[in-house]
Amino acid sequence: MNLKEYEDIKAECLEYLNEAGIVLSEVEEELFEVADFGLGQIRELGLQLVVYVNTDRYCAKELILLPRQTCPEHRHPPVNGTLGKEETFRCRKGTVYLYVEGSRVDKPKAIIPNQYEKYLTVWNEVILLPGEQFTMPPNTLHWFQAGDQGAIVSEFSSTSTDENDIFTDTRINRIPSITK
Amino acid sequence: MNLKEYEDIKAECLEYLNEAGIVLSEVEEELFEVADFGLGQIRELGLQLVVYVNTDRYCAKELILLPRQTCPEHRHPPVNGTLGKEETFRCRKGTVYLYVEGSRVDKPKAIIPNQYEKYLTVWNEVILLPGEQFTMPPNTLHWFQAGDQGAIVSEFSSTSTDENDIFTDTRINRIPSITK
Repeated sequence: MNLKEYEDIKAECLEYLNEAGIVLSEVEEELFEVADFGLGQIRELGLQLVVYVNTDRYCAKELILLPRQTCPEHRHPPVNGTLGKEETFRCRKGTVYLYVEGSRVDKPKAIIPNQYEKYLTVWNEVILLPGEQFTMPPNTLHWFQAGDQGAIVSEFSSTSTDENDIFTDTRINRIPSITK
Repeated sequence: MNLKEYEDIKAECLEYLNEAGIVLSEVEEELFEVADFGLGQIRELGLQLVVYVNTDRYCAKELILLPRQTCPEHRHPPVNGTLGKEETFRCRKGTVYLYVEGSRVDKPKAIIPNQYEKYLTVWNEVILLPGEQFTMPPNTLHWFQAGDQGAIVSEFSSTSTDENDIFTDTRINRIPSITK
């Protein structure tokens, strides 16, 4: 991802947030994160984030997804003697197709990115519309995709340590996302 | 507070939320909480709440305030061997005048409810506009009031146990608020 791509995607996401009536501070806009997971296919496999607060007890973020963009499958393992991160996704705008451990859905609504099915192992489908939410237990696999209009998800959770996330796609490198 | 007051205030708050683009589920609307703290002056001293999630690790709520409504001064003491509740207030709509421990402001922007100054002991003023937030350390006193247009505040925190809150106004009884 180059700086032009970063700036374009950031601008699109800021417009989504604006449409949803979600206001960011100048610092939050400056630190806006576009995560391509080192895969170089940001519009298919990626995620945009604004971290509101992340203390040693809790965390709150806004996640913004482009149309049909997929956040790759991962889990949050135990860290420093605590359970892994527990998190609640609350849909604010758009539709989110969330996949978690459990019974496999027959016909998933997500559109699998080209040649990416081998990196997706959980298929219990949860569809979230605005006002709907789902809480993921610690250390359980999940991945998600926005519908055709993109999506905004408020994430409420225990402390976030993204650098410890374990991805099913072992090519993924979570850290080197561009923030400016 | 009688049921008519509850229904009227709930309707006003749902309209605020609607204006802010915040969508609730049917269950959340049903459980909408109007807390008058047992004081019987709901429009002056009260708070409306929607709890999105409250696990044994974190909590997220939406707080809705009527114009110039004040949430009385309180703190969240240590509970069950853990530190008291730590919480972040993020203003989503309107203006919030928040008062926390520290230097006393010369001319507070809040309008003190009639004969209520004796129950307010902290006067370090933090003004929050949409997109601005403030994190309160555990077990520290705070109170807050909305500006002339009311306000919506997203609260991100560690686990919430409202029944343990300690109010400066010892007449207050936090629990018997009407939820329907």
